[in-house]
Amino acid sequence: MTFPVVGMIGGGQLARMTHEAGIPLGIRFKLLSDTPQDSAAQVVNEVVIGDYRDLDTLRDFARGCDVITFDHEHVPTEHLRALEADGIPVRPGPDALVHAQDKGVMRARLTAIGVACPRHRIVAGPADVAAFAAEGAAERTGGGAGGGSGEGDGFPVVLKTVRGGYDGKGVWVIKGADDPAITEPFKAGVEVLAEEKVDFVRELAANVVRSPHGQAVAYPVVESRQVAGVCDTVIAPAPDLDAALAAEATEMALTIAKELGVVGHLAVELFQTRDGRILVNELAMRPHNSGHWSMDGAVTSQFANHVRAVLDLPLGDPRPRQPWTVMVNVLGGDYPDMYSAYLHCMARDPQLKIHMYGKDVKPGRKVGHVNTYGADLDDVLERATHAAHYLRGIVTE
Amino acid sequence: MTFPVVGMIGGGQLARMTHEAGIPLGIRFKLLSDTPQDSAAQVVNEVVIGDYRDLDTLRDFARGCDVITFDHEHVPTEHLRALEADGIPVRPGPDALVHAQDKGVMRARLTAIGVACPRHRIVAGPADVAAFAAEGAAERTGGGAGGGSGEGDGFPVVLKTVRGGYDGKGVWVIKGADDPAITEPFKAGVEVLAEEKVDFVRELAANVVRSPHGQAVAYPVVESRQVAGVCDTVIAPAPDLDAALAAEATEMALTIAKELGVVGHLAVELFQTRDGRILVNELAMRPHNSGHWSMDGAVTSQFANHVRAVLDLPLGDPRPRQPWTVMVNVLGGDYPDMYSAYLHCMARDPQLKIHMYGKDVKPGRKVGHVNTYGADLDDVLERATHAAHYLRGIVTE
Repeated sequence: MTFPVVGMIGGGQLARMTHEAGIPLGIRFKLLSDTPQDSAAQVVNEVVIGDYRDLDTLRDFARGCDVITFDHEHVPTEHLRALEADGIPVRPGPDALVHAQDKGVMRARLTAIGVACPRHRIVAGPADVAAFAAEGAAERTGGGAGGGSGEGDGFPVVLKTVRGGYDGKGVWVIKGADDPAITEPFKAGVEVLAEEKVDFVRELAANVVRSPHGQAVAYPVVESRQVAGVCDTVIAPAPDLDAALAAEATEMALTIAKELGVVGHLAVELFQTRDGRILVNELAMRPHNSGHWSMDGAVTSQFANHVRAVLDLPLGDPRPRQPWTVMVNVLGGDYPDMYSAYLHCMARDPQLKIHMYGKDVKPGRKVGHVNTYGADLDDVLERATHAAHYLRGIVTE
Repeated sequence: MTFPVVGMIGGGQLARMTHEAGIPLGIRFKLLSDTPQDSAAQVVNEVVIGDYRDLDTLRDFARGCDVITFDHEHVPTEHLRALEADGIPVRPGPDALVHAQDKGVMRARLTAIGVACPRHRIVAGPADVAAFAAEGAAERTGGGAGGGSGEGDGFPVVLKTVRGGYDGKGVWVIKGADDPAITEPFKAGVEVLAEEKVDFVRELAANVVRSPHGQAVAYPVVESRQVAGVCDTVIAPAPDLDAALAAEATEMALTIAKELGVVGHLAVELFQTRDGRILVNELAMRPHNSGHWSMDGAVTSQFANHVRAVLDLPLGDPRPRQPWTVMVNVLGGDYPDMYSAYLHCMARDPQLKIHMYGKDVKPGRKVGHVNTYGADLDDVLERATHAAHYLRGIVTE
């Protein structure tokens, strides 16, 4: 059969789970991984070990692939353009992907297409940050629609390096002009983006998948609960979300996917503000932690739909299979060996869906996730939380 | 993490789907395959190419595996005993597996433990076959509970080689003492088993999974529809099956698993007779075609539970997730390239679950299967049948 070869750059758990989803689709999967021990490298047949920052490595890897896609956003944009010039389809393409690589570019573009974002500005140093804060304070005093945290001096302000941050890294919350941390972001030699600290009641995520010829599907908007800047729990769909707000979030994600020319899975992380608006926090153009629930909870998982999209195959039904699905991340704890805890969790809850990534346990590292589903949200949430905490070693029954 | 390594002997689609199920479990999977092109060899990282009939190859392969299990029943029993003597857990073990390898041993053992089978006898030649038929005719004339097809001379009789048959191969239906085929089975140099041709209304399968310490779970009894001796369609659960008969079939499968010491997945293929009894047709001690529906239709698939069982992990919930699930096999047809048909099927039915095995298309070869599920059996059956037939090229819309 002439089924295609998908080349995946990056050997993390997203690649691992994409391969898992690709097996029933009958596609061939080829992986470019940093090391043979990487999560996906353990489970894929055709693995190339190499550095994704090296163009020659990428070119060698791409030979024989029908399409290139990604486990992460770190491949240099110019390398992706070179692959495209070689005639290799890169999905999402560099012109779309740059919006997930560079927060400054993303904010400018979203604002240009009318998508609501937190107030933001590229800043060159502490003086710019203070000026940005003062403007925010003035706007709020003037009765604008600001909705910031409302203190008189415009602080706190969030500073982010425009490239390279994830899971709370590359992000600083500055409490005032005299906060010693105000100089930190400028030391990295990367552009810095200042943003208002949004007064949000919760975080949401709108996940959509778009194919090259423009078909798109939308998963239900989910609630994403963070702990210390890291995604901890996802509830699908977001409980008690106003239908109009859910529709607005979905529309927003579909608009972004279309306007930016995204191919594959797009995760739009959102703030739901205290005054009832939704603002875009971050974008990811790949399968995303906020979509892991779909592996057991939706008719078609985000991973299967990502593969279908990058191959320009018709997309699968994104609808949930039951009223509630909860995903909780399993973070590494103090116990390097999770196997006995894993056994316990299986015994306690025969309906629990465990997803382990084959990674060594390090404190705070994402080493797996669990999914639960059912009709009773309290029960579903309790079961997932208990299992994840037990695996981490936080509870011992 | 000290997660275990499962060594799978045989590179067919059952191994492929077992690997797929093992990825989220975080286990390492090692494969012994005949060729690098085999279905599972395409998707597994650690593949050893070698001959499972060679003990040295098996011993080399088993080094570093925590347990050995199987994609097929063809590994010689004495080799499995040798691996066990080396200290490698073999699951199912040779003492159990022999009942899936040798139909004569299976019939004798099931009869000894009181499990209902078709009338049967080991036969040495055509004269024995004629005598076996005559006895059947006499029993029926005597008003026994026979239930055979009821012709006066006791024919037709089914002849099977006790080893090596599958998907209708190694099976002959003999119409009378003068049927020229009556000599065929005796040419292979393998023992031959004669069985009454059961007058059945349909075939059922009772699938159970058992772990070394004796935990067992039972999937709902399914209806299995064969075409030309090959499984074509499976409906889960079997429609209109009397609850008492379903319970009897489940009980029978659990009894067989326990009495024979099966570890892993056990498929018990059954005849539902016209006079309302159930008789065992065949046993398989591995994931089985009659359980493929569970990949999308049950909380825990047969493949995941097989892995859990051979590792002596607690078993997962085998219950269905919705009222009906239908599996239809995709057989190779006249068109070697299925990709455009596959694209069509995805477009027509976004809820369709396609499972392709990465195998070259040959007429009649199992190259994949489709699953559908829902509340309306007619709809679910139509969707799966249409997709499988479209992929094969039987219908073109």
